[in-house]
Amino acid sequence: MSSDLHVEDTKNWDQFKVIDFKPKPAGDYDVDIKIAFCGVCGSDVHTITGGWGEPHLPLIPGHEVAGVVASVGPKVTAFKVGDRAGVGAMICSCMKCKFCKEDNEQYCPDTVYTYNSIYPDSKTLSQGGYATAIRAHERFVFPIPGNMKLEDAAPMFCGGLTVFSPLVRNGAGPGKRVGIVGLGGLGHFAVQFAKALGCDEVVLFTHSDHKKGDAMKLGATKFVPTGEKDFERPLLGSLDLIVCTADVASGIPLKELLNTLTINGRFVMVGLPDEELPPLIAKEAFSNGCFFGASKIGSKKEVLEMMELASEKGIKPWTELLPMKECGKAVKGVKEGRVKYRYVLKQDIIDG
Amino acid sequence: MSSDLHVEDTKNWDQFKVIDFKPKPAGDYDVDIKIAFCGVCGSDVHTITGGWGEPHLPLIPGHEVAGVVASVGPKVTAFKVGDRAGVGAMICSCMKCKFCKEDNEQYCPDTVYTYNSIYPDSKTLSQGGYATAIRAHERFVFPIPGNMKLEDAAPMFCGGLTVFSPLVRNGAGPGKRVGIVGLGGLGHFAVQFAKALGCDEVVLFTHSDHKKGDAMKLGATKFVPTGEKDFERPLLGSLDLIVCTADVASGIPLKELLNTLTINGRFVMVGLPDEELPPLIAKEAFSNGCFFGASKIGSKKEVLEMMELASEKGIKPWTELLPMKECGKAVKGVKEGRVKYRYVLKQDIIDG
Repeated sequence: MSSDLHVEDTKNWDQFKVIDFKPKPAGDYDVDIKIAFCGVCGSDVHTITGGWGEPHLPLIPGHEVAGVVASVGPKVTAFKVGDRAGVGAMICSCMKCKFCKEDNEQYCPDTVYTYNSIYPDSKTLSQGGYATAIRAHERFVFPIPGNMKLEDAAPMFCGGLTVFSPLVRNGAGPGKRVGIVGLGGLGHFAVQFAKALGCDEVVLFTHSDHKKGDAMKLGATKFVPTGEKDFERPLLGSLDLIVCTADVASGIPLKELLNTLTINGRFVMVGLPDEELPPLIAKEAFSNGCFFGASKIGSKKEVLEMMELASEKGIKPWTELLPMKECGKAVKGVKEGRVKYRYVLKQDIIDG
Repeated sequence: MSSDLHVEDTKNWDQFKVIDFKPKPAGDYDVDIKIAFCGVCGSDVHTITGGWGEPHLPLIPGHEVAGVVASVGPKVTAFKVGDRAGVGAMICSCMKCKFCKEDNEQYCPDTVYTYNSIYPDSKTLSQGGYATAIRAHERFVFPIPGNMKLEDAAPMFCGGLTVFSPLVRNGAGPGKRVGIVGLGGLGHFAVQFAKALGCDEVVLFTHSDHKKGDAMKLGATKFVPTGEKDFERPLLGSLDLIVCTADVASGIPLKELLNTLTINGRFVMVGLPDEELPPLIAKEAFSNGCFFGASKIGSKKEVLEMMELASEKGIKPWTELLPMKECGKAVKGVKEGRVKYRYVLKQDIIDG
């Protein structure tokens, strides 16, 4: 039995109550983690507010978990009790399909997400990390390097991975010029990773003029306020890759951003808005032969690469710590865009 | 002085008259080609009908030229009088910008197109290949392999290249599954090249059910009529690349086609429609992390690779030959979609 903080309806999405809940039956490959910290992700807010559709209720959000292994199933080989470990946005998949076999398990059609998903076998509802403990298949459990604080590791497993994956999949590295759109939880990781991967140029695009100091401190080589007329002009045809952490369906200057790409450059959105994408005229937006696409979280292989890089280069999120019982305050802060740049909840619930 | 067939206004776009015209002044690097054949491209029709905006008039279309070198400028090194050679959709560029230097000269902002373009230096209007001769910078002149007929080579220089380039740039080859949308002048090249490049699967998507026989003869491994409900179902998540030769702005089932792509697969349109692209919902169209993009003609480097492959594998267009003076009939046939699959005009104008 573990205890958690859950919401009971989407109208009162910032009203959390502590309850006890029963996790899925323990499987041979399952790892139980005693949660020390859990990051607060934008997805948590989308889900509890019903923005992504009516969730299963009561719902426990949280999928940026870090803690210590409390027990392991008989067939677990990668972890032992006492290991520092974390969990991200997924907790299980089929392990058999071509996506699972080709390090694309995040695209498995039978993905079990960390919360608000039904396990296909036990029909249990998955519940997230605003809780005392979590159970996950070992494939979806990640080791935490010794030189990294647990509270810094937690946000890496969703926020970090979601931008690290499209960076490395699309060749970010020496000789490359990369743009990042938006400086929030994801964007502030993206700037750091692009820099750490050795990109020649890391351009931060944002409509928030006041974020320049932070952007440069995080490693940006250029800061471009997108509210300014013709902001794209000095950059036309120059960027190899843009990772967009802002919602593309909500009025970002997409055509202008696409025009900053070099020939056959790529624009990757890391969210999948439900609304229609902005209308584009091919001659205006794609005359450089560019590509517009999407990316979903990342694979375990990429988590391991990311943690190695972060550990080596000392990359960590800028966090604001809050007691886990104050998660209502945290989700409200995320919704209102007040966090710089990630809330991390610190365990303070007593197991029931 | 050379003679040509030109249109005088866009209303009477299929009414051609023979006139004499004076080409641009001969440059040190210019090659003059005596035209034997010229292919009839969809772009010719878009231009003479005013579909792409009011053209310079009188206008001589044609940018799939094959013939024999008649004279060369003093600094030309790659060609000599008597060589078999051709010209495609471009005739000059700046040769200095980063795109020109990186084998992306088709994206040079100072491109001079084969017709309907103004040379920046001499201010001469470029005129196309429905003519007795053409003058082009040697960089935009292509040698024709000895075992290839001139009339088969001509359509390669625009139609062939336009599909060959996105195939090779996006990794078409052994182990890859490629889709081609549309079986016309471009599509029938694309199927042949995808096959010749060694792709495991070449899927032809078309709304024209009756083209199955031709598609399979050209090398398709699967024929998929897109008019059928749920046509995409058996192919979901399976293709690495789609090259779309149909106009994406005109009601092709784009979402369904994107869903046939594998993770991070790419959809490349080879035209740039002026109209708005079809509205897409990211969650429906990009949940496989795919990319949607465009491609413009191809580079000289790619022409040379294409001609080598075509020469080696015996690839050639399916052509209908017409006397050049009947070009009015040809452009009408293209507009009405009657050609299978490329009209090639045979020289019959007498120099003035």
